Amino acid sequence: MIPGPTMVSPRVLRVLSRPILSHGSKEFVEGFAEALELQKRIFMTEGIPFMLAGSGTLSMEATIANLVEKGDKVLCLENGFFGEKWADIVHAHGGFADRLNFGWGKAIDLEILKEKLEDGDYKAMTVEHVDTSTGVANPIDKIGEIMKDTNTLYIVDSVCGIGGMPLKMDEWNIDICITGSQKALGAPPGITMLCVNEIAWGIIENRTSIVADYYADLKKWKVVMDDPKKYFATPATGLVLGVLEALRIIKEEGLEARWRRHKLFSDAFKAGLSAMNLQTFPSRGFEAHTLSVPMIPNTVKDSDIRGIMQSKYGVIIAGGIGETSGKVIRIGHMGSVTINDLIATLSALEMALMDLGFEVEPGRGVGAAEKILSKG
Amino acid sequence: MIPGPTMVSPRVLRVLSRPILSHGSKEFVEGFAEALELQKRIFMTEGIPFMLAGSGTLSMEATIANLVEKGDKVLCLENGFFGEKWADIVHAHGGFADRLNFGWGKAIDLEILKEKLEDGDYKAMTVEHVDTSTGVANPIDKIGEIMKDTNTLYIVDSVCGIGGMPLKMDEWNIDICITGSQKALGAPPGITMLCVNEIAWGIIENRTSIVADYYADLKKWKVVMDDPKKYFATPATGLVLGVLEALRIIKEEGLEARWRRHKLFSDAFKAGLSAMNLQTFPSRGFEAHTLSVPMIPNTVKDSDIRGIMQSKYGVIIAGGIGETSGKVIRIGHMGSVTINDLIATLSALEMALMDLGFEVEPGRGVGAAEKILSKG
Repeated sequence: MIPGPTMVSPRVLRVLSRPILSHGSKEFVEGFAEALELQKRIFMTEGIPFMLAGSGTLSMEATIANLVEKGDKVLCLENGFFGEKWADIVHAHGGFADRLNFGWGKAIDLEILKEKLEDGDYKAMTVEHVDTSTGVANPIDKIGEIMKDTNTLYIVDSVCGIGGMPLKMDEWNIDICITGSQKALGAPPGITMLCVNEIAWGIIENRTSIVADYYADLKKWKVVMDDPKKYFATPATGLVLGVLEALRIIKEEGLEARWRRHKLFSDAFKAGLSAMNLQTFPSRGFEAHTLSVPMIPNTVKDSDIRGIMQSKYGVIIAGGIGETSGKVIRIGHMGSVTINDLIATLSALEMALMDLGFEVEPGRGVGAAEKILSKG
Repeated sequence: MIPGPTMVSPRVLRVLSRPILSHGSKEFVEGFAEALELQKRIFMTEGIPFMLAGSGTLSMEATIANLVEKGDKVLCLENGFFGEKWADIVHAHGGFADRLNFGWGKAIDLEILKEKLEDGDYKAMTVEHVDTSTGVANPIDKIGEIMKDTNTLYIVDSVCGIGGMPLKMDEWNIDICITGSQKALGAPPGITMLCVNEIAWGIIENRTSIVADYYADLKKWKVVMDDPKKYFATPATGLVLGVLEALRIIKEEGLEARWRRHKLFSDAFKAGLSAMNLQTFPSRGFEAHTLSVPMIPNTVKDSDIRGIMQSKYGVIIAGGIGETSGKVIRIGHMGSVTINDLIATLSALEMALMDLGFEVEPGRGVGAAEKILSKG
């Protein structure tokens, strides 16, 4: 129950155990093309889809390496660990990152953002949809309204969002959007995806300076995405077909139904935490649906909670990271997660807290979740 | 029977179908550490091992991005498609690539190389161990003897070599060596590996200019390789454990025994081709053990051979690439391949050639292979 890599369906695992396919085989080429089509559907875009072998960080890099030229200014909105990665990548590629840091888990102030955008001459702006380090979800739709009236490209990292929370790339004026396979999509780690709209692609195509990146050079990959029979570098054939199976599962569930399920699960889980008197770390009203990040009581250690939950009750959750280290626990409830997983996790947490002497009324958290789940 | 991705053992496939593990889990962390140790053994080095999510091309890029600074000169030895990739990568990172092209499939002239090295002030030199496009194998040991007396770093791409042909990184004075998972290692595609020796690492550590690459920045990954519990970007946990299983299989077989098996298979396969009157594409004495690349008779089309072999006899082989396109067929016999696979492939080729009206004595190619295999 960590916030990624998440558990995947046995259907996906079965695909992974099939004999290795050639990247030139009909089965792989057709599967890759289908996967790219489904990718566009879950991004809700008519933009160009890219599916690459690598971590989500590779897509962040591909975005910046292809867009940013020496001296370009990029506005980086930060409210957690992952948002802060962007500035390093911008600097690596010779750009200037203007970091607008709202504090870990704190909501982005849209008025401050508006002013910044009016003052600065930014080629692009980066923001996390969900920062997995804090469980904060940023209002990508509202920010998109602001971005519409600017010449600044809108770049969204939805590694921990897409497939679990609404994300409408074209409708929300997003120019480049990225995700990873291992979160709300319910696929194994190792594949990253991004979509690039016409505006951003025009800028990439027309840049005159050389892209200081070969493996992440999107113009080189475009040839393969247009025709998966073409070769640039060997794709992770088995993983791509694993991702395809996960995308088919999403299509069967229905994207909107999947968003609703994630919201229901999130509401139920957070009600359970609240009933245990655990406060949520991210600003109220800005909690992600894909994970929950409660603060832990001063009287207990996060490693003790996690240790007991794993060893005594068989549930694995994550601790904090960076600034949240030792202060929070992080529980993913996205992708292939079931109601039973949620209940077992809340119960394990309740029991672990009881074991550690924290006052919890047995079954209260679970009960609060049940009330919501039974109506959902 | 294409020259990668290759078929993998059912043992590896079973590992791939296991439930997804967290990158922080004990099982994964220990498995990753074991995989890195085994990686050093098959590279035969005390250098630093890196295992990254991505294609082999990513390791080529990581090598150049971390080593090459603006204006640095790199000597690129070329005798095929993959060797020619290096120059593009060097240019992308602001270096100057001096391309020494011997012609596709042609042996490297060591005297010309020596002169070049004496004349030029090269920071590094790149060479393919095996260029999969032509089936040529370069004398990495002899080149290493020459490199020993220079200040030029020796970079070897052994994507299609390591695990199937002798490669002794430290003994042969190689400074950075790279490979991919999907060839002679018998693992699925999606993971790339490189090892960096002390000299090269010193240069990487002491460079003053910024590395124009974030995802391929080896200083960032080093932290994770030293302690797989640390986080930089989400590893492809399932694939890493699949690679580990493949590396364990290599350990069980024994690295030298595996080299001998590949040589035996290669000798047998090439004897079979010769008995069918098919000429080999790479220069005599420089044929790789991991694949065979025969030229096809003028009277038949490569696509017809491949089509009949696949549809009528159930064997998939590869065509040429770039300059060899339409002129050769390429057959991989590396990794988990068995004697029976070799024989079936030679037989399918014999029958396909007969079907296409090329004069072949039935069983002659298979017989020639049998003579060698039965003595091996």
